[in-house]
Amino acid sequence: MTSSRPLILLSNDDGVAAKGIRTLHAALAAIADVVVVAPLSEQSAKSHALTLAHPLRHRLVDGFHAIDGTPADCIYVALYREQFLPRRPDLVVSGINHGYNLGVDVYYSGTVAAAREGALRGIPAIAFSSGPQGSFEAAGVVARGIVERFLGAALPAGRPPLLNVNFPAHRAEYLGVRTTRIGRRRYDESIVLRHDPRGNEYFWLGGPNAYHEREDGTDTTAVDDGYVSITPLSLEPTAGEHAELAELLTNEGA
Amino acid sequence: MTSSRPLILLSNDDGVAAKGIRTLHAALAAIADVVVVAPLSEQSAKSHALTLAHPLRHRLVDGFHAIDGTPADCIYVALYREQFLPRRPDLVVSGINHGYNLGVDVYYSGTVAAAREGALRGIPAIAFSSGPQGSFEAAGVVARGIVERFLGAALPAGRPPLLNVNFPAHRAEYLGVRTTRIGRRRYDESIVLRHDPRGNEYFWLGGPNAYHEREDGTDTTAVDDGYVSITPLSLEPTAGEHAELAELLTNEGA
Repeated sequence: MTSSRPLILLSNDDGVAAKGIRTLHAALAAIADVVVVAPLSEQSAKSHALTLAHPLRHRLVDGFHAIDGTPADCIYVALYREQFLPRRPDLVVSGINHGYNLGVDVYYSGTVAAAREGALRGIPAIAFSSGPQGSFEAAGVVARGIVERFLGAALPAGRPPLLNVNFPAHRAEYLGVRTTRIGRRRYDESIVLRHDPRGNEYFWLGGPNAYHEREDGTDTTAVDDGYVSITPLSLEPTAGEHAELAELLTNEGA
Repeated sequence: MTSSRPLILLSNDDGVAAKGIRTLHAALAAIADVVVVAPLSEQSAKSHALTLAHPLRHRLVDGFHAIDGTPADCIYVALYREQFLPRRPDLVVSGINHGYNLGVDVYYSGTVAAAREGALRGIPAIAFSSGPQGSFEAAGVVARGIVERFLGAALPAGRPPLLNVNFPAHRAEYLGVRTTRIGRRRYDESIVLRHDPRGNEYFWLGGPNAYHEREDGTDTTAVDDGYVSITPLSLEPTAGEHAELAELLTNEGA
């Protein structure tokens, strides 16, 4: 049995049972064949980690493929384990994440990393995230529209596009969709110290609160203003701006 | 007691007991005050993961600070737990990693992520890695020279520099130091299937072999040719090249 519909590989970092991925699956299944390969358990802030030190297990959860590893593991496994996909997917989608991935979050996010893992392997990819208490149903409808237009667009030559989409959660309706750049976001930087019942110290990283200044054209400001934000993410690892400094360090005396 | 020497925060992803970090500590202690805050256990391929789902513990191992978390956790904790550092460090250093971090490795590497965590928090940073069976002593001497010149250089305005340094391991002597861009590196992409003693399937990610084409100016080629490679890494998350495509997706019909 073959299908002429596009093939989408769908993952996330909240785990295979999360409402965000279930809603996105239902929305995308209307326009494409969608194969879910997602983490068995929550993998927030796991960034682009791969599991190399221990082996992985596969399970079916409600008919969806689940892997007891990271989001990047899931994309890797899906692409190289033949049973999962009938052919190379046309698009990798990740999300809908439970919580924003704005600003510096893109470095830490497992949701973004799943999409990036697809793009690094040559497949266009989109990460979707929504703020807390947002409507996944509303986000799913807009995500489907974005994916539909993306699948219909002529892709430029070169590296595959990697898009980061965030849905504002603080308004009843989105005001529209905006193309943005990544803004600056800061967290409560702190360590919370505690003691266990045996009197031994342990500590938690940071506070949950994030802050940003208003900056035109950024993802943070678009979402503040009630717009869905689409940011194209870079896959260029080299910084041109620091080449001269690096050159200074190549002194022959080394 | 105060010191006029530079202050370096040193971490890695192989763990606090690894030979690479111990060698680098000894080399850098000759030119700076060096505080080690490193993972308690190996954290290879943990990328930029932060530990948010469980709390962390601190231990002293041979007088060095060890945290039972990721490389990025270590930098975070060092900067926000006041006992660890007498003041804000002048430089974050990571390594020497046991194994190259070339090409696409920079996305997966915990060594690079520790340095990037420093740079994201405004502190210049360098990641050092050496190929398998390389001489850490030789690498330590060259690393000290690079750090010394770096500390003496006038840093450009804007984002702090983030440098990725690799030492070739297949020659008796380095031929010199070169500034490079990140090359393209591919791994044996495969899944290795096994069965446990109870007959249940498990699998490992990929093979260990990496390949690359010869490309002038890249980190992979410099190291092939016997040169120490220095690549400045980008901290710009937005891709200018796909802005037009993203714009197409912001259709008012969304």
